[in-house]
Amino acid sequence: MAQDPISHLQRLTAINASAAFNKLAQFHVDSAQQGVVEIHMKWSDEFTQYSGYLHAGLIAALLDTACGFAAVTVSGNVTASHFSMNCLKPAIGRRFIAKGFTVRAGRRQVFARAELFAESDQGERALVATGESLLVPID
Amino acid sequence: MAQDPISHLQRLTAINASAAFNKLAQFHVDSAQQGVVEIHMKWSDEFTQYSGYLHAGLIAALLDTACGFAAVTVSGNVTASHFSMNCLKPAIGRRFIAKGFTVRAGRRQVFARAELFAESDQGERALVATGESLLVPID
Amino acid sequence: MAQDPISHLQRLTAINASAAFNKLAQFHVDSAQQGVVEIHMKWSDEFTQYSGYLHAGLIAALLDTACGFAAVTVSGNVTASHFSMNCLKPAIGRRFIAKGFTVRAGRRQVFARAELFAESDQGERALVATGESLLVPID
Amino acid sequence: MAQDPISHLQRLTAINASAAFNKLAQFHVDSAQQGVVEIHMKWSDEFTQYSGYLHAGLIAALLDTACGFAAVTVSGNVTASHFSMNCLKPAIGRRFIAKGFTVRAGRRQVFARAELFAESDQGERALVATGESLLVPID
Repeated sequence: MAQDPISHLQRLTAINASAAFNKLAQFHVDSAQQGVVEIHMKWSDEFTQYSGYLHAGLIAALLDTACGFAAVTVSGNVTASHFSMNCLKPAIGRRFIAKGFTVRAGRRQVFARAELFAESDQGERALVATGESLLVPID
Repeated sequence: MAQDPISHLQRLTAINASAAFNKLAQFHVDSAQQGVVEIHMKWSDEFTQYSGYLHAGLIAALLDTACGFAAVTVSGNVTASHFSMNCLKPAIGRRFIAKGFTVRAGRRQVFARAELFAESDQGERALVATGESLLVPID
Repeated sequence: MAQDPISHLQRLTAINASAAFNKLAQFHVDSAQQGVVEIHMKWSDEFTQYSGYLHAGLIAALLDTACGFAAVTVSGNVTASHFSMNCLKPAIGRRFIAKGFTVRAGRRQVFARAELFAESDQGERALVATGESLLVPID
Repeated sequence: MAQDPISHLQRLTAINASAAFNKLAQFHVDSAQQGVVEIHMKWSDEFTQYSGYLHAGLIAALLDTACGFAAVTVSGNVTASHFSMNCLKPAIGRRFIAKGFTVRAGRRQVFARAELFAESDQGERALVATGESLLVPID
């Protein structure tokens, strides 16, 4: 509650570093405030599906992580019980940016949502997917 | 339509081999019939989240792939527009098996669902997650 | 836990009778066992959308109620926090039957799913929609 | 495309009047622009669940209708294939206002989302539920 923004960023950066897959995919926490976070990942040819676009598993990983990290800034440690996503456009670009937001944080459940943007070589961003997560605070 | 089961398996094995992330994660297509497929992945310490369980991105990747592969056996090439999953239990085990099923395949949309089982060192399987996908046939 | 099937039915019939909308729509509880329930509703011209099929609100009401009632048999009183449905076919028929099942009942969350069948004048049943619900036990 | 805002409102008001359940529940279309609509419904004791709050079926009906109407302003007639909602708070109030937005409208699928607000006797609005819908344009 009385935490300043820098400590949210420090806390999430530490959590991010402790997750093996986040390291493998080189997720990076860019900013974190109460209920709002931003992370990004660079393009990798190793993370594609059969058409050469970003794999659904990576889209989910980015959206779910952004939701979860937003929830952490409000409710401490959480675990996701439900996740959904809409794939609006083929996910291709030099970089992917996921923004997470808490929608409502209750004592027993936290609702969060996220948006995934693909950044082109020219630096233009397009919304390629949206996601939602329902999380449970853990003690 | 008149394809025999072996050709479904051959087709999906080829698609699976053409997806870079499926290769990185070593997804394997175990069986494929009209509307029903099974894939698996071995445990890897590189695919964990911060608690040491399988990362949500991999859970999603397995469920989404099982849904998509089931749809391919019925409708040919498809792309997923919506995906959701329920995380029922912590996903931990020596191997993960995802079973995909088509629920309804229309001309314009295919509904599929999947179940993810974790296999313990003793060979016991537990249902750890369920997923759903809505796919669009592509020409 | 030690309840016999008849008491599940009695309990759900009483809950059903205490919900004004369930009475308006004339929902009826047909059977109830531990984790499995069945309800039905007769066709009414008043419950249609603009094409003359059953309105999405009624499809949701039937699926959500079946999920919730299944959860009650396992976890006592519950409230739904997330609900989703797939509309597979136009919902039309003389009667609609919704079957609800619990998928996993934890201390803090219950996962349930449901299937909605439309019954034709000839008595044939077709699966027209599926649903899922995530519920929280309330004290 | 070249339609002016009043014609969206006229079109949706006509669709709303042609749906029996929308009439029964007295849905009213308040405003409609390209990709954004607002509808409302007054409280009715007949539309409650067992705790006396608005029934999930009505919450779904309002959110789904707002999504569908927003899609109509962009893509013409549509039918929903997937719908989901989050119930954030008990839905109680003298009036319910649902705002629908299109997120992306493609040739084959339209993604829309909606927010449901409960208005208290003092005129204060609280966000009580959010919803999403995936729709298919029909000819």
